[in-house]
Amino acid sequence: MGNADYVYPSTNEYRQCAHPVAVPPPQPFFKSFKNSLKETFFPDDPLRQFKNKTPSRKFFLGLQYFLPILEWGPRYTFQFLKSDLISGITIASLAIPQGISYAKLANLPPILGLYSSFIPPLIYAMMGSSRDLAVGTVAVASLLIGSMLGDEVNATENPTLYLHLAFTATFFAGLLQASLGLLRVGFIVDFLSHATIVGFMGGAATVVILQQLKGILGLQHFTQSTDIISVLRSVFSQIHEWRWESGVLGAVFLFFLLLSRYFSKRRPKFFWISAMAPLTTVILGSLLVYLTHAEKHGVDVIGNLKKGLNPPSFGDFVFTSPYLTTAVKTGMITGIIALAEGIAVGRRPFSRSAVNFNAGCKTAMSNVVMAIAVMFTLLFLTPLFHYTPLVVLSAIIISAMLGLIDYEAAIHLWKVDKFDFVVCMGAYIGVVFASVEVGLVIAVAISVLRLLLFVARPKTFVLGNLPNSTIYRSVEQYPTTNDVPGILILQIDAPIYFANSSYLRERISRWIDEEEDKLKSTGETSLQYVIFNMSAVGNIDTSGISMLEEVKKITDRRGLKLVLANPGAEVMKKLNKSKFIETIGKEWIYLTVGEAVEACNYKLHTCKPDATNEDSQPWNKV
Amino acid sequence: MGNADYVYPSTNEYRQCAHPVAVPPPQPFFKSFKNSLKETFFPDDPLRQFKNKTPSRKFFLGLQYFLPILEWGPRYTFQFLKSDLISGITIASLAIPQGISYAKLANLPPILGLYSSFIPPLIYAMMGSSRDLAVGTVAVASLLIGSMLGDEVNATENPTLYLHLAFTATFFAGLLQASLGLLRVGFIVDFLSHATIVGFMGGAATVVILQQLKGILGLQHFTQSTDIISVLRSVFSQIHEWRWESGVLGAVFLFFLLLSRYFSKRRPKFFWISAMAPLTTVILGSLLVYLTHAEKHGVDVIGNLKKGLNPPSFGDFVFTSPYLTTAVKTGMITGIIALAEGIAVGRRPFSRSAVNFNAGCKTAMSNVVMAIAVMFTLLFLTPLFHYTPLVVLSAIIISAMLGLIDYEAAIHLWKVDKFDFVVCMGAYIGVVFASVEVGLVIAVAISVLRLLLFVARPKTFVLGNLPNSTIYRSVEQYPTTNDVPGILILQIDAPIYFANSSYLRERISRWIDEEEDKLKSTGETSLQYVIFNMSAVGNIDTSGISMLEEVKKITDRRGLKLVLANPGAEVMKKLNKSKFIETIGKEWIYLTVGEAVEACNYKLHTCKPDATNEDSQPWNKV
Repeated sequence: MGNADYVYPSTNEYRQCAHPVAVPPPQPFFKSFKNSLKETFFPDDPLRQFKNKTPSRKFFLGLQYFLPILEWGPRYTFQFLKSDLISGITIASLAIPQGISYAKLANLPPILGLYSSFIPPLIYAMMGSSRDLAVGTVAVASLLIGSMLGDEVNATENPTLYLHLAFTATFFAGLLQASLGLLRVGFIVDFLSHATIVGFMGGAATVVILQQLKGILGLQHFTQSTDIISVLRSVFSQIHEWRWESGVLGAVFLFFLLLSRYFSKRRPKFFWISAMAPLTTVILGSLLVYLTHAEKHGVDVIGNLKKGLNPPSFGDFVFTSPYLTTAVKTGMITGIIALAEGIAVGRRPFSRSAVNFNAGCKTAMSNVVMAIAVMFTLLFLTPLFHYTPLVVLSAIIISAMLGLIDYEAAIHLWKVDKFDFVVCMGAYIGVVFASVEVGLVIAVAISVLRLLLFVARPKTFVLGNLPNSTIYRSVEQYPTTNDVPGILILQIDAPIYFANSSYLRERISRWIDEEEDKLKSTGETSLQYVIFNMSAVGNIDTSGISMLEEVKKITDRRGLKLVLANPGAEVMKKLNKSKFIETIGKEWIYLTVGEAVEACNYKLHTCKPDATNEDSQPWNKV
Repeated sequence: MGNADYVYPSTNEYRQCAHPVAVPPPQPFFKSFKNSLKETFFPDDPLRQFKNKTPSRKFFLGLQYFLPILEWGPRYTFQFLKSDLISGITIASLAIPQGISYAKLANLPPILGLYSSFIPPLIYAMMGSSRDLAVGTVAVASLLIGSMLGDEVNATENPTLYLHLAFTATFFAGLLQASLGLLRVGFIVDFLSHATIVGFMGGAATVVILQQLKGILGLQHFTQSTDIISVLRSVFSQIHEWRWESGVLGAVFLFFLLLSRYFSKRRPKFFWISAMAPLTTVILGSLLVYLTHAEKHGVDVIGNLKKGLNPPSFGDFVFTSPYLTTAVKTGMITGIIALAEGIAVGRRPFSRSAVNFNAGCKTAMSNVVMAIAVMFTLLFLTPLFHYTPLVVLSAIIISAMLGLIDYEAAIHLWKVDKFDFVVCMGAYIGVVFASVEVGLVIAVAISVLRLLLFVARPKTFVLGNLPNSTIYRSVEQYPTTNDVPGILILQIDAPIYFANSSYLRERISRWIDEEEDKLKSTGETSLQYVIFNMSAVGNIDTSGISMLEEVKKITDRRGLKLVLANPGAEVMKKLNKSKFIETIGKEWIYLTVGEAVEACNYKLHTCKPDATNEDSQPWNKV
């Protein structure tokens, strides 16, 4: 019998040319444990570039990792400066009106929006790794702060507490983001899928636009809620309060902004038109109010703005307030969403960063230029905003928000993946009709449900033989395939886990039943072999192995032989440890479906397959 | 160019013998939606047996489905009755002491335990589908009711309210089980894996055994908590209260019970010894107390039991009590656990059912016999239990519970699957050190985390060529495989979903980096092709497609060609709808890794691979 490992009396003539299936060599538990930890938490192998370097080189590389300015700084040229100057001033002209507008979204003093475009860009210039990114205020995060804190504390009635809570919330947002990075659990953000982000952003943008109805219509009283029903009820319950002056002004400016954006989109060379448009509307609007004294005819203006720079506000954190949990919750959600938004849209720059890129920035120095421009504004130009009408800010916000409602992406989701579309709509409807948290929870729940459903209800399908080949593929996908008489080949398309083992047992029994019924009705040869193609079974747990043992019993009872094809490394390891390889017989595990079929056919035509005495022979124990 | 679909200028000489990859024919949305709903909720196709039957036959089959007695009743013979009589009396002798003991676990009057072995078996005999199952009290469910309700209401201080809450809880347990069945969402139970059940049952059994220390040591005061720390503190804080008479009696009876079980396990023919042992200990214990008047010397006895049958207790449900939520929660958890226990152990009968099977029952009629025997006991024999010492009941419970601590299964889990072992231990420790709910939540959380981790961190590995074949397999599992010069073949071992698309992008880039570094250091031919084996990619969502698009950009930038091998039906459908097939080029998708490698090799030796002008040719748009 020679090569005892792979030659078996009953099939030896065939077995000699078949490939054996390997059980991977056993690994010490702690080594494999360490490996899987590493793969889970350090998939990017962050220390790779430090390998095989001298200690001083390692130190320098480490410093560069934290301060990328050390990398590009020494190579900085006057040519770069010229480009960065132009792009920096361009993004400043966008950042200033955005800063003032988005601060209003968060119910914070407009001046704070300008601070966000002043200090953070300076820090980013030293520590940031992207040269195109333009740091500043973000609409959705501003809205989140505004709506979540606004539920608890009224910003107009209690401005100091509200301000302090906002500081505290941003502190926790930063703390969360830093911990996610340091603890290497950024993959939590992965659970916010692309579809979730599209729906969520669209919903948030819709909510923000609805909020602007207050400014556009010049209303004095407005609901604290953000859901569409409350907002529309609030708007239409005070139709007599609508200010037509304000409305007309808003519509005109919005039209101008949208037109400039449309034009820039059509002719990318004129990107600066849409970049300059917000500042232009601010200047035009302020001039118009100043000249016509419209502030006395129902057009609200920003009013007095504090000039100069604020002292640092470390002392303003409130860690002892009864509202601390609100601040922490707001911070956490804002942090997660901002991170997810950053990652999701990071690869196709948005708004301000797109402008920065188009303006030809060369390094993060453009952020420094922007910061200086904003500082200049803070120090000397704030009085100029006194006459800026609020309706202009609303128009700027609406115009920016319309860009976030990515209906084309939603249509694409519908076309490509209905489930993703449902996730997207769940997030959108949740945000618009309830609240941001509800939208988020709905979308994540649907997404995770989909993952669990994928595992709980894996696809199983029948394979057939591609004519004139030894290739076996799904009979549904390849209708030209031929059945193999007497053999049922099933593919299981997911790992076999506790969550699907009951289902798979039911489903496999049904496949066998149906195949037997079919063969009976056509009067063909009866079923003799069931081959499982395990190529797509990435892993198996103990519940899965029990399932296989039960299926083996079922097939034995019906006089069928169970054959496995191409089990992977993990599966073979577990089948070996649980002795299932001995149960099924090592000679019934093949490397490819083709070889399994060939072996079955060989036996089918030389001897009866249910030679049960074979099972008791010693070679099964090899 | 003839057959324009599959012949491409640059590779046509090879392409002609390669197999095309099919995009499955488009299916109407509602048809595929209906199909997936059906697969999710009706995997067993319950109406299969009704197909192609006359209406009257359908009605009869449906009636038989609900009342299996209609199936076996007409075929019932005197021979069957003889067997069922013997097995029915045997299980009654086990059910009576079990009923009284388990009622004590639930802090309910012992008589109620007997009712459970009287009415339910009669119903089961008509409607049950298993002939071996012996209906009756279940230890873990009894413990759950006792511990969860006991947290809220003291059974000794407020027995009527407690009793009514227990009724209400069992009502909701039944309601839940019925709804799970009717709504076809029984798969919720699948999320309690085998490992969870082993750990949970072991933990519950440990808790029950700890509770018996009260009875064994004859303690009058005892903690209401079930966690090990409270119980041990309660036991050891009153060492001076221990009753040695009680302890000695308990130890002797426990030893006898364990010995009989050990003996029956070694010699299955004498199963009746362990089946009769509990009743024997009850009789012996009662006789002993009666003769020695031990009840006056520190051995507690059951005392007076109500004789006769109770009226129906429909009126005793309390739907208005402030404790309703407790009752509902208790009912829900008890219902889920009982169901999971039933399903998990259903295939290797436990305790009472094993005895029924061994005693040779033929039909569910054995349950009727048991019910009659129990009724007889209720009507005439309850006074005999007056002198039954509580310590005997404790010994019976401990002996039964020791059988539920399946340490061999836990060792098996450790050997086969470390993760399952962690799940099992999580459930065990949670139940023993905190509470049943905590144990359950821990185990389910770890299990679901594992599923999510499987999807979030899929395996990717390099494939090599098995010598003298066109088979490509993992180089780790098959160390004899050879590298293919200039080609990196990667296998992705899970569906590509939002949860893993970021990870996969990182990991794939790293594989390419590492391969290029390796080739550079050995000075071999540079990398030209990257082939993804998609055999194990069961599905892809829009985030996954974006990932592929990004990877395509990365490979393009490095002058590498991206090639796909064997994408499945779902994947091809999505790639087609999202136009990724056009992006990658239809001629770069092959049916097998072997054919993909052959085509790459062909090109590698005839022309340069990064002939970028090729991408702009019209045939890409086919």
